[in-house]
Amino acid sequence: MTRTPSGEVELIARLAEIFGAAPPEVALGIADDCAALDLGGTDYLLWTVDTLVERVHFDLAYITLGQLGRKSLAVNLSDIAAMGGEPLYALLSLGWPPDRDLGGALEFGEGLAACARDYGAAVIGGDTVSSPAGLAITLTVLGRVPKSEMLRRSTARVGNLVYVTGSLGESSAGLETLRRSLALEPALQEPLVRAHLDPRPQMAAGRLLAREGLATSCIDLSDGVATDLMHICRLSQVGAQLTATDIPISPGVRAVARMVGRDPVELSLQGGEDYQLLFTCAPELAPRLSTRFAQGGLEPPKRIGTIVSGSEVVLITDKKEKVISGGGYEHFRLDPGKSSD
Amino acid sequence: MTRTPSGEVELIARLAEIFGAAPPEVALGIADDCAALDLGGTDYLLWTVDTLVERVHFDLAYITLGQLGRKSLAVNLSDIAAMGGEPLYALLSLGWPPDRDLGGALEFGEGLAACARDYGAAVIGGDTVSSPAGLAITLTVLGRVPKSEMLRRSTARVGNLVYVTGSLGESSAGLETLRRSLALEPALQEPLVRAHLDPRPQMAAGRLLAREGLATSCIDLSDGVATDLMHICRLSQVGAQLTATDIPISPGVRAVARMVGRDPVELSLQGGEDYQLLFTCAPELAPRLSTRFAQGGLEPPKRIGTIVSGSEVVLITDKKEKVISGGGYEHFRLDPGKSSD
Repeated sequence: MTRTPSGEVELIARLAEIFGAAPPEVALGIADDCAALDLGGTDYLLWTVDTLVERVHFDLAYITLGQLGRKSLAVNLSDIAAMGGEPLYALLSLGWPPDRDLGGALEFGEGLAACARDYGAAVIGGDTVSSPAGLAITLTVLGRVPKSEMLRRSTARVGNLVYVTGSLGESSAGLETLRRSLALEPALQEPLVRAHLDPRPQMAAGRLLAREGLATSCIDLSDGVATDLMHICRLSQVGAQLTATDIPISPGVRAVARMVGRDPVELSLQGGEDYQLLFTCAPELAPRLSTRFAQGGLEPPKRIGTIVSGSEVVLITDKKEKVISGGGYEHFRLDPGKSSD
Repeated sequence: MTRTPSGEVELIARLAEIFGAAPPEVALGIADDCAALDLGGTDYLLWTVDTLVERVHFDLAYITLGQLGRKSLAVNLSDIAAMGGEPLYALLSLGWPPDRDLGGALEFGEGLAACARDYGAAVIGGDTVSSPAGLAITLTVLGRVPKSEMLRRSTARVGNLVYVTGSLGESSAGLETLRRSLALEPALQEPLVRAHLDPRPQMAAGRLLAREGLATSCIDLSDGVATDLMHICRLSQVGAQLTATDIPISPGVRAVARMVGRDPVELSLQGGEDYQLLFTCAPELAPRLSTRFAQGGLEPPKRIGTIVSGSEVVLITDKKEKVISGGGYEHFRLDPGKSSD
């Protein structure tokens, strides 16, 4: 018998070996947010699949079926956004417990359809299977991106600046308030809960970065900056330095961190499911980011660090440096459920 | 609140309404084995997704992880075969229990990769998620078929003859022998168990039918003839008459039917997971089937009935007629697990 993989990252790498080299028309395979196919023409076809499992990725005590329908598609669209693309079509494979009211599946479908309409995608098919242990939702999405514009994970360069859209840790802070029934001011809590239950894929930001050639690499934040920036670093063979005081943290996230006794910077960098974009930008183009985003009606992205040589993601706090991922600090694991981050 | 759907067929129809009309480049959407997209060129892009859930669709007491890897892809390829197409690429979304050895996921991957190689498909990506209640395997596959050749469910015509490849009920009979530990002669049992554990998608037969224009409609047999022929009938607005004495039933299936006290014809028509092709053929072309299949190195298909006007599938036995699906006899249900048929 072969040695057992130590966790998800190694498992994916070993499976990629088993599956073998992709044919030449596959521009990107297993190692990015989406697969990219060159089927002729000026665009790549982008293709992604994501599964959400009840009690791992969501809990129906906190999220309605309509919100879940929206979110199930949104997390796939976020993968398309990270490539700079736009979505075209979606197929649904819905595992539904046989003892649960089928009317709920329609509520789920309504949310899914609304999200598709918002982003110009069409849900063109689907199937249902029995899933006694709980909902299991798989969406697969096709999109497109002009070949010359596609954003990748593997193309960050030393000296590039690291940016994020939005503010970080809101989704996981929102989940904490739901799980622990934290008594937070509504004005602080509401954006956090919304970030968790109804994340908005950053389609417009991704398209802008791609169209204007403003990003040297990009990924969507599903597992938190510490993990997701490491994907860029590993594939680009670089390291990164983040500056703690530059991390965009909302007052709500600070309040939740205080209430649960966690460091707000750590919560922001490790919290999953932000579905914001993390990207790198050549320093000479960085001045354009604010104006271009503003012209597009988007909040300007925030600089959080710099790409350096090396193989670790280092956080600089109060003149101290701390490795937060890479080397011995990387947690190899089988995706423990993004919601539990 | 809206009324709860009465089962899977109504649920899919209601979801299709919610999802709304597909854009014009979607040649086939929710109502066939695959979605078919016209992205330019001479081919349609075929796209399918299927999920297998542990203890619903398979039991690891009977099937090895390697066999499961093969079968997970095979059931998707069968959908491509039913459209007359050929597979191109697959993406895997693998839900794996966190407490189960990750080495098994490699064994699963080896089986999947072997099946992909056999049929000229490339597994180009994948993701893993935690699925504490058991394995949940989703494969999504892209394929292609020349636009002029694509086989559909909706195009059967009155007077067409109904054919199947292979013999029927072998997979469900094989499952019975495993579940009940039936003591059957090995020579009888082995083909049944193989049909259940290692079904072979009828890619070559589907391509032949499409290329030579020999089928007026086609579907793959995942839920049994009674159910799957009804899909053709409903979408084509026709009925069908089957002749019991024409149903191809192997000696092994007859033996199992006797041992479990079931009618062999009923077992053959209701047994799921045969992954053979069910198709209709214009009578003037029917004489060509045997020679063309033989030239292609394939076993000739067997005629089991005729398309008639109406809306039911009727089985003719000993001069009596019995409605086996359609009208009041259709079981609306949320897919109870193909393996349990």
